[in-house]
Amino acid sequence: MSAKPNFSGVISPVLTPFGEDGSPDLDRFVEHCEWLLEDGCTALAPFGTTSEGNSVGLDERMEMLEELVDAGVDPKLLMPGTGSCSIADAIALTEHAVDLGCGGVLMLPPFYYKNPSEEGLFRFFTEVIEEVADDALRIYLYHIPPVAQVGFPLSLIKRLKDEFPKTVVGLKDSSGDWSNTKAILDAFPGFEVFPGSETFLLDGLRNGASGCISASANVAAKSIRRVFDNWQSPDADSIQAGVTALRKAIQGYPMIPVLKGIISHYRDDPTWADVRPPFVEMTPEEIAAAVKALADNHGFTLEFSSES
Amino acid sequence: MSAKPNFSGVISPVLTPFGEDGSPDLDRFVEHCEWLLEDGCTALAPFGTTSEGNSVGLDERMEMLEELVDAGVDPKLLMPGTGSCSIADAIALTEHAVDLGCGGVLMLPPFYYKNPSEEGLFRFFTEVIEEVADDALRIYLYHIPPVAQVGFPLSLIKRLKDEFPKTVVGLKDSSGDWSNTKAILDAFPGFEVFPGSETFLLDGLRNGASGCISASANVAAKSIRRVFDNWQSPDADSIQAGVTALRKAIQGYPMIPVLKGIISHYRDDPTWADVRPPFVEMTPEEIAAAVKALADNHGFTLEFSSES
Repeated sequence: MSAKPNFSGVISPVLTPFGEDGSPDLDRFVEHCEWLLEDGCTALAPFGTTSEGNSVGLDERMEMLEELVDAGVDPKLLMPGTGSCSIADAIALTEHAVDLGCGGVLMLPPFYYKNPSEEGLFRFFTEVIEEVADDALRIYLYHIPPVAQVGFPLSLIKRLKDEFPKTVVGLKDSSGDWSNTKAILDAFPGFEVFPGSETFLLDGLRNGASGCISASANVAAKSIRRVFDNWQSPDADSIQAGVTALRKAIQGYPMIPVLKGIISHYRDDPTWADVRPPFVEMTPEEIAAAVKALADNHGFTLEFSSES
Repeated sequence: MSAKPNFSGVISPVLTPFGEDGSPDLDRFVEHCEWLLEDGCTALAPFGTTSEGNSVGLDERMEMLEELVDAGVDPKLLMPGTGSCSIADAIALTEHAVDLGCGGVLMLPPFYYKNPSEEGLFRFFTEVIEEVADDALRIYLYHIPPVAQVGFPLSLIKRLKDEFPKTVVGLKDSSGDWSNTKAILDAFPGFEVFPGSETFLLDGLRNGASGCISASANVAAKSIRRVFDNWQSPDADSIQAGVTALRKAIQGYPMIPVLKGIISHYRDDPTWADVRPPFVEMTPEEIAAAVKALADNHGFTLEFSSES
């Protein structure tokens, strides 16, 4: 295992903008990705939960990723979601990401069938790794039991890590349960662990986490990055407190619609607020109220340069 | 709405046999489908839950369906599963099924995101119907909350049915909750309702159900069909009792592995027992024990003609 981690810092599960016709909007997507990297993100995770990743088709996902790399975004900074209920589709998406040179992939377990055995999940990842058969593959396990229901218990993480030490290199923990994140950090030093929310960023870094992969980094990467850059400074707790307060305020709204709404507001681009079913977009009035509350209570605002 | 129902009787969610290389085995699949229709099934639902449908890739599903129609199976008897978390993939699968002439499609709701709003689910199906834009489309809603978690409350069924009366024509209720099935039957006379288990077949038929769509029809269609054919006879309750007892015995094992195991045993074809992760196949010893128990306690056996 290389000593140098593959990913660290503040990673955004990139929102997927849709165009007037409901298809993923490639121009808005590339523009948003480039802006996120300017705003403080150290890497990008397209097709995560916040990305409505599972609402985007297989072909659409591949086209978006190709567009991003074609636009000049360094594929080493990309950790696309390539999990699928279907092992065939998971293999196809993972192969495609590795072929494009992506630094890693963020993989959900197969999540349709509930309560799968640990042996069955182990076999799923084993088959994906053996079929992709590429030394460049780096898998980050995506543990998000509140949504996927199926998750990664410590025993499964250990088994996958032990069997594929160069490939299964990290995990995103979106359990929302700090004691679970702490248990993983304690059990597997050197494993690249990313809490799924910046609320656990400082605690995470103090316990060996690599950073965080967080929905709200779509609009707040700059402030989250301050925690990452200053976590050993005397100000760290106070910086974290401000970041936590903003996150909790954002969480008071439906997460994906409000993030898209915020961007649509500050970009003055109503189409940016669109979501795919089963989500429902916020109305312009709801967006305006959320934007005002976040500005009034947290001094939150976004700036986009005129050319971006 | 046409007075004549599109589907009725005993429908099997067809098991997906895999070959030595782990791909869907087209020959075994067609052979099994043809045998099911001989054994008493009135129609077939490939790519359901029992079919490991969500473990089969998009391209694989389309190829299997094409193979089946090419082999001469009447597409009017097919109700393939075409649901997907991704609306793009759901549209692609549904269009493909309609283009092949399938009598209907069995559609899961998008099941990744939990607790979606009713409005969001309504929009999902509306978009699928409007994008497919084919009068021949017949959608059967697939309600299976124990697995998909996301389901169809009565108010959503009503809204979809009222908005698309010629298209949203029925529902498979795999809630396992007879009171829910009964409530749907009572609320929507003429709607084609199929309990997801033959244990509710007789009660269902007495209350207006169209039949059942049941996993165990993969091995027990002949006996389930006797309930359907004789439901108004004096023997109906006793026939149902035997069918219910067998189903409960089968349910004592992991459903998909035991069904495949039973077929592998009686076909003397060990590969038939294979499953895709996250499932794990039963061992030959476990299969033998299950086959013996079902034979001893329920007189259960299967016969395949030598040429099939």
